Parts: sequence; structure tokens; C-alpha cells
Amino acid sequence: MKIKVVKNILDANEQMAAENKVLFKKKGIVAINIMASPGAGKTSLILQTIDALGERLAVIEGDLASTFDAEKVGKKHVPVVQINTDGGCHLDAAMIRTSLEKLKLDGVRYLFIENVGNLVCPAEFQLGEDRRVVVASVPEGDDKPFKYPGMFATVQAVVLNKMDVLPYIDFSVARFLEGVRAINPKAPVFQVSCRTKEGLSDWIDWLKKIAS
Amino acid sequence: MKIKVVKNILDANEQMAAENKVLFKKKGIVAINIMASPGAGKTSLILQTIDALGERLAVIEGDLASTFDAEKVGKKHVPVVQINTDGGCHLDAAMIRTSLEKLKLDGVRYLFIENVGNLVCPAEFQLGEDRRVVVASVPEGDDKPFKYPGMFATVQAVVLNKMDVLPYIDFSVARFLEGVRAINPKAPVFQVSCRTKEGLSDWIDWLKKIAS
Repeated sequence: MKIKVVKNILDANEQMAAENKVLFKKKGIVAINIMASPGAGKTSLILQTIDALGERLAVIEGDLASTFDAEKVGKKHVPVVQINTDGGCHLDAAMIRTSLEKLKLDGVRYLFIENVGNLVCPAEFQLGEDRRVVVASVPEGDDKPFKYPGMFATVQAVVLNKMDVLPYIDFSVARFLEGVRAINPKAPVFQVSCRTKEGLSDWIDWLKKIAS
Repeated sequence: MKIKVVKNILDANEQMAAENKVLFKKKGIVAINIMASPGAGKTSLILQTIDALGERLAVIEGDLASTFDAEKVGKKHVPVVQINTDGGCHLDAAMIRTSLEKLKLDGVRYLFIENVGNLVCPAEFQLGEDRRVVVASVPEGDDKPFKYPGMFATVQAVVLNKMDVLPYIDFSVARFLEGVRAINPKAPVFQVSCRTKEGLSDWIDWLKKIAS
């Protein structure tokens, strides 16, 4: 019974996600779903990406509570809307649909969707996005791909952030990459620091290729 | 409909949690539910606590997948059992009940329950524990209490881990404490580094007081 209800919710979400996908394609928008643990650097990556990409971006910010992230993005003068899930552990396709009505999308080429900070539940919910990306960070430890395989299996790219603190943390890049490869043989892994801007150019090139 | 089902699941869990609580009291066990984001340092805190407390401990390790954490704890020669939730985003009271059958609890004074790495969903589920603790870590950022109020509201203590990397991270301890206080005026906040052992003695004293 419990499983059946969950299946119905997921099926309804998939239907709505498929509709979002059609809408994005019609408007010529590349939608990127950014997922991560709390504090891995999703917002920092989006801010750096806004700075690097000349093309027009829009952002949907997902959080349980607060508007901090939308305020940071708003200072960059790009269209942004904040979703507060009020305790909800992930974004779903219906939330994205509602948010789209509040965003000026004319001329927008990339829509960044910052999911709720959670390495588990967002993996289960399609939003209609073109690409799914997980941001991991060095202080979280090199075992995360092994421990959260559902998330690392569902993405088309991995961003390993906070490389600048590597000297101060017990973290093996080789073991992290081994974990990613065991679960997801194809996804590129971008080793970056949003603080020092190290390694961001490969990430930006990857984004440009998607939209070309 | 969806909300009703969720409520039924939560009610059934509360009932089972109440039974666990009776069982713990009968056996003279203090049960501590340790919750945090992935990689905040739950396992490290438990390992340090095993070293510091002469009294007998047992540990339940919760993870989506893998047995890394149970293996680390097992090396300390304390009773340990690993729960793999197979994608599930939190532990529930029924999982704890099943695990208890696999643990030798004679002479055990503290049972540490390491929840799934998730700052959202575990907050909703009572396990029958005596105390709920959240481990936050400096690299996650000082805004976490504001952004995950449900978790910070539900706990009786906050451990702020990885204080050793404070010089390398943009993090205001004052702002973090302000966030905790806004949501949870009473819970003590222990500023520690499980790597350098800084600040752990106050945490250990707090644990000793609970069991005295």
C-alpha cells in the first residue's frame, strides 16, 4: 500500500516532468538540475556560472526555508524565483511548473534549478531537466559515491568543489573518482574551487557544448 | 490523500518509537540519535566518543548502502549493526527494533544510532531515543540553522564539528550560533574537531550527565 502510493506520486511527477521538458524545448532553454548535500556549494557554483557565461541565465532556488540564496543570485541581475518547500525534502516537477510562471524567460538560454540540499530524495524526482548534476565537496569525504549511489548514478556530470581545502582534509581524489566510476562510468568529473575559481573553465565549456 | 497516508506512516512510527523507548528504559540504556548532512562527521564523533567513554557502548549504523561505517566502529570492539536502507532517506523506529535483536545489549549503557546522512527527513521520525543530536560542520556554512530549521528545532544538542578548518573557510561562528538560538534557544552547542579532539570534553561531560 505504502509502495503503491509512492509509485503513483512518482508516476504523476514523471508526467509533469515530461510536460516541462516539452516546454523547455519549445522555448529553447537548457535546464540544469543542481543537486548536493547541504553546503556543498550549489549556490556558489551557480554564482560563478552566471559570472562566466555571457548568455542569459535564469535561476530557480529550492530551500526548505529562507530566501538567502535567491537574494545572492538576485544581486547578479538575473531572473530568479525562490521555492520554499516548507520542510519538503526535494523539488518536484509541479513546483518547477509553478515557478516558471513567475520567471521572465524571454531570451533565457540556461535555467539553473538549485534543488533542496539533500543527497538522497532529489535523485528520485525528475523535473523535466536536460541535465542532472551533483555537486560534491572535499570536506564531505571521498566515500560519498559509495554511500549515496542513487544520486551518483542519476547524474550526467559531477562537480567536486572546495578543492582549495584539500591540503587540510583527509580526502583521496583517486578514491572519490574510483567511487564515481564504479557507479557512473561516463559522467565527467570537474574538480573545482568556487572560492578560487580553479578548474571552472572545463565546467563552463561543458555547459556551452550542451547549448550549442 | 497523500497527506493522510504520510500521517498514518508517522503515527505508526510514533507507536513503535514509544515501544522502543520503554525497552531502552527497561534495559537501562541511553539511546542517542545522531543526525547530520552527509560527511559532517557523525561516524568520527561516535569513534571519538567510544575512545573517551569508559562505559560500554553499542552502535547502530544507518546508510543507504555500504558497510564502511560499521567496519570502522567494529574495529573499536563494541557491538555494532549496520542498517542499509537501500535508498531510504531516514531510519525509522521499526528498523531500530529489528537491529536491537542483532545486538548484544547486556551491560550496554549508551546506544548510538547514526542516522542516514540527511538534514531533512530524519527530523520527522522518532526512534524512541532519549536525546536527538545534530552534527553540523564548518565547511557546510554558517547559514544551515536558518535553512534547515526543522532539524535544528528537534534536537537537544548541536555539535559543530571541523573547527580545525575554520581558518580556511568563510564561516562566522557568531552567525551560526545566532541561527541556532533563533530556532532552538536551549540546546547546548559543542564546538569541536573530531580530527584534533579539540572541545570534545564538554560533549563527553554532557553524555555522562544524561546517564547519571
